[in-house]
Formats: sequence, structure tokens, C-alpha cells
Amino acid sequence: MTTSAQPAEKLPSQQTSTIDMKDIVALCKRRGFIFQASDIYGGINGFWDYGPLGTELKNNLRDYWWKSMVTTPPVGPDGHPVQIVGLDSAIIQNPEVWVASGHVGGFSDPMVDCRETKKRYRADHVRVLVPKDRSDNKPWISFMEGMEVNERAKKLGKAGYNLSDPEDAIFWNTELIKLPYEDYENILAPDAKKKGTLTDPKEFNLLFETGVGASEQDRTTAYLRGETAQGIFINYKNVMDSSRVKMPFGVAQVGKAFRNEVNPRNFIFRSREFEQMEMEWFCHPDEASKWFDFWKAERKKFWESIGLSQDNILMRDHEADELVFYSKGTCDIEYKYPFTAPDFGELEGIANRGDYDLTQHQEHSKTKLEYLDPERNNEKYLPHVIEPAAGLTRGVLALLCEAYTIDENRPSGVYLNFHPRMAPKKAAILPLMAKGEQPEVAEKLYMELREEFAVDLDIKQNIGKRYARQDEIGTPYCFTIDDETLADGTVTVRERNTMAQERIALNEVAKYLREKIKA
Amino acid sequence: MTTSAQPAEKLPSQQTSTIDMKDIVALCKRRGFIFQASDIYGGINGFWDYGPLGTELKNNLRDYWWKSMVTTPPVGPDGHPVQIVGLDSAIIQNPEVWVASGHVGGFSDPMVDCRETKKRYRADHVRVLVPKDRSDNKPWISFMEGMEVNERAKKLGKAGYNLSDPEDAIFWNTELIKLPYEDYENILAPDAKKKGTLTDPKEFNLLFETGVGASEQDRTTAYLRGETAQGIFINYKNVMDSSRVKMPFGVAQVGKAFRNEVNPRNFIFRSREFEQMEMEWFCHPDEASKWFDFWKAERKKFWESIGLSQDNILMRDHEADELVFYSKGTCDIEYKYPFTAPDFGELEGIANRGDYDLTQHQEHSKTKLEYLDPERNNEKYLPHVIEPAAGLTRGVLALLCEAYTIDENRPSGVYLNFHPRMAPKKAAILPLMAKGEQPEVAEKLYMELREEFAVDLDIKQNIGKRYARQDEIGTPYCFTIDDETLADGTVTVRERNTMAQERIALNEVAKYLREKIKA
Repeated sequence: MTTSAQPAEKLPSQQTSTIDMKDIVALCKRRGFIFQASDIYGGINGFWDYGPLGTELKNNLRDYWWKSMVTTPPVGPDGHPVQIVGLDSAIIQNPEVWVASGHVGGFSDPMVDCRETKKRYRADHVRVLVPKDRSDNKPWISFMEGMEVNERAKKLGKAGYNLSDPEDAIFWNTELIKLPYEDYENILAPDAKKKGTLTDPKEFNLLFETGVGASEQDRTTAYLRGETAQGIFINYKNVMDSSRVKMPFGVAQVGKAFRNEVNPRNFIFRSREFEQMEMEWFCHPDEASKWFDFWKAERKKFWESIGLSQDNILMRDHEADELVFYSKGTCDIEYKYPFTAPDFGELEGIANRGDYDLTQHQEHSKTKLEYLDPERNNEKYLPHVIEPAAGLTRGVLALLCEAYTIDENRPSGVYLNFHPRMAPKKAAILPLMAKGEQPEVAEKLYMELREEFAVDLDIKQNIGKRYARQDEIGTPYCFTIDDETLADGTVTVRERNTMAQERIALNEVAKYLREKIKA
Repeated sequence: MTTSAQPAEKLPSQQTSTIDMKDIVALCKRRGFIFQASDIYGGINGFWDYGPLGTELKNNLRDYWWKSMVTTPPVGPDGHPVQIVGLDSAIIQNPEVWVASGHVGGFSDPMVDCRETKKRYRADHVRVLVPKDRSDNKPWISFMEGMEVNERAKKLGKAGYNLSDPEDAIFWNTELIKLPYEDYENILAPDAKKKGTLTDPKEFNLLFETGVGASEQDRTTAYLRGETAQGIFINYKNVMDSSRVKMPFGVAQVGKAFRNEVNPRNFIFRSREFEQMEMEWFCHPDEASKWFDFWKAERKKFWESIGLSQDNILMRDHEADELVFYSKGTCDIEYKYPFTAPDFGELEGIANRGDYDLTQHQEHSKTKLEYLDPERNNEKYLPHVIEPAAGLTRGVLALLCEAYTIDENRPSGVYLNFHPRMAPKKAAILPLMAKGEQPEVAEKLYMELREEFAVDLDIKQNIGKRYARQDEIGTPYCFTIDDETLADGTVTVRERNTMAQERIALNEVAKYLREKIKA
């Protein structure tokens, strides 16, 4: 039926996901993390704006990745720190770049249309549950990847399957694109009522087009970059010529990329404008496999060091039939998002790309990109490339999902359990009274702390509401200034997760925070 | 002749500019600050890529601006710190945003074509030197703003003017757009040989267009943002509803913007893709004028605090005839770039925009944007806006121009005199010998310092060449590890500007740097 090595899926008749994405999306809007773009104009599908706290959260992740790559890169297998330099290339490049990379021409995505609903889908994003018993006339249900298990079970029930019958509840869960077109007549399209309405897949290019140039006659078609990686490959020679790097070394970039997605969905998981954090690691061909393993381990450590739990991370090596032709190995770091659970969805991909990219750019640009290696008897070679390519905006989503903690024992009913490194605010300073000496003492503390930490000074409103707000935005520590502070120079510290309170000296607050946050 | 209040210009017959932009551009490429985008493909006009050091320099400016706005905003006139929150909105928004802002429709730029050369120019970027004696038949020369004075003088010489004759050397320097079309017959176009070849100005829209949507039939035209400011205005309500800000307050954003410039020029000064740092300050209408003055002073301090000299900065209040109709006042912070000297070019604009933007978005989006002010007896009003809008990439250019210092007494012949806050590398660690114990000691020092400072570890090559490289990339301090270090635990510190050397204890290096850099 299908060549995919995917295991048969046993769908539970009932499963409750404890966390609902709708609640996370609502909190993100309510507290200023993430808004629908152009909200007051009714939005624009696939685009998102980051509010005050979302921007700080995203910046924290961006800066920590930059630190882990460029400022303090890891120690390599030889005991010495590896070399990585930064780069920031333009979003719009000479269009020939995207011809060479394969994004224009060869590399487009297969699309199917639904004749009933007129909707269009990416064939590799539609999943089909093929029943064990194919002789039966029941439709094979399909859905967009990322649909929750409960929803799938509902769909199956409507289509006539009896999930409490063990024989009736075994399905192959596969991508539409992997099924032959003859099978399409059995498939119920994601939004259709009748089966057999999907068309044959057609190629569709995801790059956004634009025109560069002042006058109509000399305007040329150009593209918004579909990934940040190509900006690194085309600057490989300039970096080599201007820096003191030698093989092996890396070039890192953070920035926006754009894909004209057919079905943007799952909040910021699949949007049309998003941010990437990509590093291209150039090395001798013989060492590529060693470095592939090195970066797989390093990248897993990275995500764990900012609070993603091991249970929610999956290192998934691609099967041979998943690899693009030039890839010598790819491992996805997947995260168990609420909308994929109990499955996982992509967070980062680590690929052994061989010399494919430099070969393509060498041919198309007619510029020699070979490296003359003084440490290998002047051997001349095109370096191989290991690419850890992470989603910055997907990382923000994983951090939000991981942090979202339901707790009926507190007024807010929920708190964000951010790792202190990632929390948008490290502490809040809350005078109990809005008038008199307390706010003065609070402001003085705020002015002292803000030089070193992102801190919030919040003066008005009752203290319960202010704690609730800090819980919902994930602030690890609240310092309360009260009459005792004025009398004996102590403040109350409230710890976010336990809600435990203790009193410490006002003049020890900076030291306290430093120990807790920087540990 | 012209209604412009600009003073008559007396052109010197000779003037030598000490610094040539070509040398700065060459250093930027040689040392990895800035490369032509798509360099190996022959480039693409108006786009630039930032190399390893340019990226760090740009990030330093970006982060320092963010600190000065969002993390540690200034103390206001009332003695309390002002409130500013961050934002990061999408580059692509609902197209209606740009209709409301006036960028689509009304707000396009006047273009002229040259019939002789077929070149196209923005009429407000072409300057004309109108001779005092207009009865004479000599052509009025024109040039793109930013052309160096020497080049202008050459052009005048060719056109038959005798610059050593005091009477013949007096001109009105004005924008083409301010002259009536009848005068065009006298004007020699920037690249033409015969006068009178410029056409009447036509409107031209600078926004890049793209199409959003998967299928041809439901694809809608959208625009790449022409400025980051609109992303703030359309999120004003979401920020108000989700944050604890109250009037007055600011919203700050750093990000890319795009303009399909007709004549990109002067390196990264006028490019088609660039970065902005904009803050919108919302306040009660009665207080706008006070805040306008406040932000003018603050912004000037900012640029001076990162090394721009007072002599090179000009605060230029716009004349009444320069203001757009809704503006109640604009002040440009201008910098004396080598290509504008002895004139100045824009670095930042501070505008009192009144309630123009919120009014437009309120009308177009049909969403109430009024503020109910509890501190003013619940008065309802549309806040007025003060906008300090700085160029991040222009700031990088000003920092590079300011730092570029010719010094024939050192091997490199030049060094970059960056303020330590902005220098991409704060220190370099240079073992004299590449083998033995010295590089080990150097690496140990590097591992210690890199947690706190951006430092360079450079092991091979003779020490003179390594110093020269650090001079050219503007590293304030070099620490040299030699045999004495192994014997007595001291290192040589070399100070960039004076080249003075002294010995300090190896275990005092971090403290030394902290005092010098963070001072």
C-alpha cells in the first residue's frame, strides 16, 4: 500500500489533552505576547505581530542562541572551542541565488485542490488514515498535520468507524503525497463532505515574488528569501577572504524568512513570515559525519538548557525515503506541541548537506569556492556542510507551550513556568501602597536592578491582581515593598512556581536575583 | 526665483576632503564589515550583506538603542523614568494599513526621466545650482544629493563657470522639485551632456509589491513595509489592552524596511532594504510640544554617547515649507558624512506627528482608538505622537565614518576609533608564539573573558600584522601573551589609539577591561 516505514497507528477512542492551544493563544493576546497581524483591519492570514512581552521572549531566545553559537561557541572534540562567526544578509538577493539553490524551478511544492470546497492544500501536509480493511467502502479520512487526536477520532466516528472495536480502529497514518493517485477516490478531503474530491497534485512555488527597479521596463522579478541559509552560502567566499577563520568553522545567522504557505495554521507554527536561526558548519568531507553527531548532541543540550523537558523532545533521524537526494543524513529535533500530541512536530532540523550548496553556487556563479587547506598538505576541496537550522518563532512557541501550566490553586488559574533565562521579566517590584514612601523605595530598587535585569515596576492595583498578572507573564520573582520595608529594610520575595514567600534584606535583592537567575 | 529659505551657497574653488568613501567601502569589504549583496552573482543594486564584524557592530547599536529605550528608558521631566515597551510587527501587513497611512495612493514620490540618458531620478533627491546671474546662457548643473563638493566644482568648471571669479561663483542650491517646470530647459541633468532633457515629474510609488495567497485567483496584492512606524500605530490598541502602560508612554521597534529606491547610492546610506529604530511616544495633545523638546535633547545625547562628535552632528529644525501638512514640527539629526561634507545628511528624524496616524487608522479600520484618561477626569482624546525615527543602518554608517582615522605612523595606515561600547571586539588575545605553552595560556584567558566581553583569540601570523588587523577592525585593547607571561604572570596591553603599551597582571585583565569598557 505504501512504502513508508511508519508504524500502524492505534487510535484511542478517547484521549484528553490537558492543554488547549486556544487557551495559549488567548493568553498570548491578553498579556501582550503575540497578536494577529493587522488585528484592527481584521488580520491577514499567516502573519503575526509580537507584543511587548513576546518581543522580549523572542529576543531572549535569539540572544541566547547567538551566545551559544557566536560569542561562546562550544568546545569541540579536540578540547578547543570551535570557531563560528555571525552574518546578516539581505532578504532580497539576486534572483539567480534561488535558481542555484533549487528554490526556483525544481524545488516547488505539490498542491492539491478540493473540487467540492475549492480549498487548496499542500499534499505533504495532508495526512490520511488508511483503514486496515481496505475492502470496506468507508471513506479514508484526511486532515491537516497537527490536528489533535480527539478531533481525528471525532472525524472517524462521523465517517462510520467504530473505535471501540479493536479491528476497526487500526489505521496507517501516512502523508497524502505518498499515496498513488488511484487511491484518491477513497479519500475524504480535509474540509469536504463527499469523498474523492481531491485533484492530482500540481507543483506550486512557495517563494514570495516582488519587483526590483524604478521603472516598469527595467523592473526585474526577485524573491523574498525562503530561508536564511542561502545568504550564508553566497557569502562563504567573502567570509573566508575577510576573516581569520580556517576549516572547520561555522557561519551563523538569525533573520526573517518568507513562504507563501497555502494553509498557514497552528498559531505561529506555520506562518508565512517567520524567523530562523541557522548555522552552516563547513568542514573537510571526511569529518562531516563526526560533526553531524557533534551538532546533534549540542543542539539537544541547547533546548534542554532553556527549559524544554526531555519528555517533550524527540530526536528523529529521517528514514532513507524522507531524505532529499543530496542529503547524507538529517535529524529533526521535534517538540510535542499541544496540536501534535501525542505526536511531535518540527522545531529544528540538523542536516548533513554534503557539498551540494557550494557546488550549486560555484556552478551558477562561476566563482571558485574551493578551500586550499594548509593543514592538509594544501589539499583542495569543497567543504561539506552540517546545518543546524532552528526556528526562532517555533522556538518561542515551544517555550510558551512548555511554560503553560494549569494551576487551579491560584487566582489566575494558570502560570507560565519559563526558565529564568527566557522569562521576559526576571522580577517585578510591587509597592503595596501606591502613595507615600513605598513607591519611592520601589522606584529606587527598580532603577538599581534595571541596569542588570529586565524588571517590571508595577505600582497600582490590588496585590492579588498584580501577582496574578506576573504569574501569567511568567515572572520568576516578585519583590513586595510594604510598611515593614520602611521599618526594617526587608522585602517579601514571592517565588512564582511555589508561591512561597520569604523576607530578605532590601539591599540583598540584586545579589539574590543574580544567584537565582544566573545560576 | 525659489520660495526656499535656503541660503546662497558660495562654492570653494578647491577643497580637499580628507576621507574618501571609497576607502571606507574597501575596508568594510576587506575586513568583513559589509559586502555587496549577492557578490558572487555580480550583486544586486541597493542591497547589502553584513559580514561578521558588521553584524556585531550593527547588533551593538541595535542593543544599545533598545537599552536606551526599553530596558532603561530616560528619566522624564517629572523626575521619574518614562515608560516604553517593545514591539516586533510583521513586514507584510493587511494592505489597507498602507492605504490608511497614505503610502498607497496619495503618498508617492515625484520622478523625472532624462530623455538623453534614459535614466530616472527622484525629483526631491536631485539638487540644482541656480546661478546668481540667470540671464547668462550657461546650463544650471544638477547632481544627486550627496555628491562631494569637489565633484560639484568640477561639474561647474566643465559647464563654463569661473569659480575664482567671486561674482560667477554664487549659486542657490535647491531641490529640483522646488523649481517650476519652465526652468527645466536650463537644467543639465545629472548624467547628461546637453541641457533641458528632464521630463516633468511623475508620481511613483516606492513600496515593494508582492502577492499573498496560494492560488492565482485568491492572491491579493500586499506590500513590504516602507517603515516600521505603522506596525506600531496599528498595534496601539492591542498594547493598551494588554500592558499596564498609561499616558504618556512609548512603543519601540527595530526592524527592516524596504523602499524601491530609484537611485540607490552612497553605500548603505540609501539602499532598498534597510533597518530602522523607531519609537512612537503617545501623549496628551497639550504635552506634545514639551515631549518633542525632551526627545530632541535625549536623542542628541544618545548619538554623542556612542562616539559621534558634536562637530559632525547638526540638529536641523525643518522650515515651514518642508513640513508635511499634518506635521507640527520636525527636527532632523544630521551627520556630516564624507559624501555630504561640508553639508550634512539625515541620520534620524524627530517628528511631532499630532494625531494624524491614529486618526487615519481609526477611520480606515473603524476601530475606536481614543484614550480615556483616568488622571484627567476621564477626558477622552486621541493621543498625539512624537516620533524619534532613527536609521539603524545609517547609524552603522555614521559610526564607521566617525571611526575611520588615517594615521600614517602605523603599518595599517588607518584605524577605526570606535567607542568601546560599539567596537565589535572589545579585546584581542594574541600569544606571541603559535606553539608551546603561550597559546594554552591565551586560550584560557579567552575562555574567561568571552563570558563577559566579545573577544578575539588570534594565534598565528607575526604580531605586527595581527596588531594591524585589530587596528583596522577597531579593537580598543590587545593583550599579548609572551615568555614573560609564563615567567611572571604579566601580559602586555596595547591601547589602540595611542599604541602605548604597558604590562599588567594576567589575573587583572578582566578587571582592567571592565573598568575601561564599562566606564
